[in-house]
Amino acid sequence: MSEFHSKIKTIEWHKTNDGGCSVMVDQTKIPHSFEYVEIKTLKEMYDAIKTMIVRGAPAIGIAGAHGCALFALELLKKYREENGAEFLKELYEGFEYLNSSRPTAVNLSWAIKKQKELVEDSKNIPGMTLRKIAELLIENAIKLENEDIEINKKIGDFGAEIIPKGAGILTHCNAGALATVGYGTALGVVRSAFAKDNTIQVFADETRPRGQGAKITTFELVKDGIPVTLLTDGMCSYFMKNKMIDVVVVGADRIAANGDTANKIGTSTVAITAKYYGVPFYVAAPKSTIDLSIKSGDDIVIELRDEEEVTVVNGKRICAEGVKVINPSFDVTDNALIAGIITEDGIFKPEELKEKLQK
Amino acid sequence: MSEFHSKIKTIEWHKTNDGGCSVMVDQTKIPHSFEYVEIKTLKEMYDAIKTMIVRGAPAIGIAGAHGCALFALELLKKYREENGAEFLKELYEGFEYLNSSRPTAVNLSWAIKKQKELVEDSKNIPGMTLRKIAELLIENAIKLENEDIEINKKIGDFGAEIIPKGAGILTHCNAGALATVGYGTALGVVRSAFAKDNTIQVFADETRPRGQGAKITTFELVKDGIPVTLLTDGMCSYFMKNKMIDVVVVGADRIAANGDTANKIGTSTVAITAKYYGVPFYVAAPKSTIDLSIKSGDDIVIELRDEEEVTVVNGKRICAEGVKVINPSFDVTDNALIAGIITEDGIFKPEELKEKLQK
Repeated sequence: MSEFHSKIKTIEWHKTNDGGCSVMVDQTKIPHSFEYVEIKTLKEMYDAIKTMIVRGAPAIGIAGAHGCALFALELLKKYREENGAEFLKELYEGFEYLNSSRPTAVNLSWAIKKQKELVEDSKNIPGMTLRKIAELLIENAIKLENEDIEINKKIGDFGAEIIPKGAGILTHCNAGALATVGYGTALGVVRSAFAKDNTIQVFADETRPRGQGAKITTFELVKDGIPVTLLTDGMCSYFMKNKMIDVVVVGADRIAANGDTANKIGTSTVAITAKYYGVPFYVAAPKSTIDLSIKSGDDIVIELRDEEEVTVVNGKRICAEGVKVINPSFDVTDNALIAGIITEDGIFKPEELKEKLQK
Repeated sequence: MSEFHSKIKTIEWHKTNDGGCSVMVDQTKIPHSFEYVEIKTLKEMYDAIKTMIVRGAPAIGIAGAHGCALFALELLKKYREENGAEFLKELYEGFEYLNSSRPTAVNLSWAIKKQKELVEDSKNIPGMTLRKIAELLIENAIKLENEDIEINKKIGDFGAEIIPKGAGILTHCNAGALATVGYGTALGVVRSAFAKDNTIQVFADETRPRGQGAKITTFELVKDGIPVTLLTDGMCSYFMKNKMIDVVVVGADRIAANGDTANKIGTSTVAITAKYYGVPFYVAAPKSTIDLSIKSGDDIVIELRDEEEVTVVNGKRICAEGVKVINPSFDVTDNALIAGIITEDGIFKPEELKEKLQK
């Protein structure tokens, strides 16, 4: 086993004397090539998130934290100490701008909020300077980076308990090492389970329109030597009816207080199909994905993306001219379809979230 | 409205002094070009069916009938009247060969059986010659062709009754004019409904791996001026949850005596999702698709096709090397998920099929 996941970090702060920059795997190039890009400004980070050079809710969260730090470094060149108020005003405007890059994954706003709280708290620290604020943001981004991997390993260990021996595990989209800083959430569960039982195997939905399952999930599982079978998105019923799937594990972009879960478009179709066949359906996500401020999935904003993601594949149009398209990037899985939500603190039933986490 | 469907025949026998040939729309080229191909031999017909130049259960049935006639014409050049027994032996071997081109759609074996019965019956006709047998096969193929359109118009008229005013109709794959000789089964229902109420609209699943929904359904609906929205295969839950779908209508490749229905892979996933949201799910198919000889869907042979249909799109690989693929071309929808089966004799509940049709 090459343990690809332990050798790379999907997104990482590179420190330099000037402060540094964010270095990330360009996920739009996988599986055909594996390249890193350096992100040096707020605008570059906004574009990287929006165009999905970085994607996956936890990875987007870290990208948000990095973006905040990058913008503070940019503003250092513009403001002096005596303009601290203007510095903060523009910094926070930048945070808002970055937060608008993608609406659904709560991890982005969660991380930006963490950074903003840090800046607010710094006002009470004697001798604080603009440069020190930037340094605090960088240190915090690195801390969140490292925590992400720790959290995912805990998720993996809790989740491995619910994987039957020799299981066929269906997953949708990519909630892997490449959706996080490393190890993965849903694929973290797979990795932890595989470490204990190498007879398990993964069934990966291709996950149209953007195909993250085909492109990214197969890539990272093949690299780690974990057997993976590629399905088109309509095939889950066939595979479940033929008893090839024992459990479904997916990631999440935002989980409401009642357990309703937004995840990549097509997830709820899988969950409904799993319920019909009696296959347990689990969500694996860090607590930062749980948004107790919203009651149910009805309150989750679903991002609509470009038509061309649906109508063009590998550079060629797949349908007639004149067709209409609505391209929701996520859907909401009803809490009643979810057997459990696997977090770094353990596995919760959807109805337990509010009580167990609101402390 | 251009009424594209009334101007073309998807497959048609072209008569000549020599007997003629089969002319069909090459469906692998749609939507980028619209071309006809001439099929002159049994082998060419076998290949046309297998490579899906012609596809759609009713169209494959007619292709089977044509193929039988073509082979009789071929054998005329090889055998004289005194070798009638050898002629018949080789003819029937050819029928078997043609029947093996695709296993799931029963219309193929249904049409070949019809042709074989005709040949058997001809033994009782005084003055029968090998040429006359070939002519009988041609005439019967043309008769089946014409009947197909009549049947589809009846299916359309019965089906239009169950389409609510202004409905959003979800369909999967292509059960249209291009899956039949003309007019279509599921899309025949759409056409008949649209003729009465032009506020209805269609939602078309792209239908990976081969994308017949994206390629063919959008093509023929746009040509006819019927509004159509393209969905990826995982999106049906989102669209149903958001109340954009009022009814699902699909075609069928084989319907068992208990109403279990084999149709293009992904269909049963849609049916399960529809059941969850309380959206009625209908199957539109001619009686020739109903196979009373098999009790349930468990007895339907599901064709497995090439891995590359899944792993390569528009000439480019979409996944990592080393991934496994199982590519079932069809799945079976449980009878309990089906609100009704729309035939040329009316709409039946799955449990009514046996009683109403076994006469």
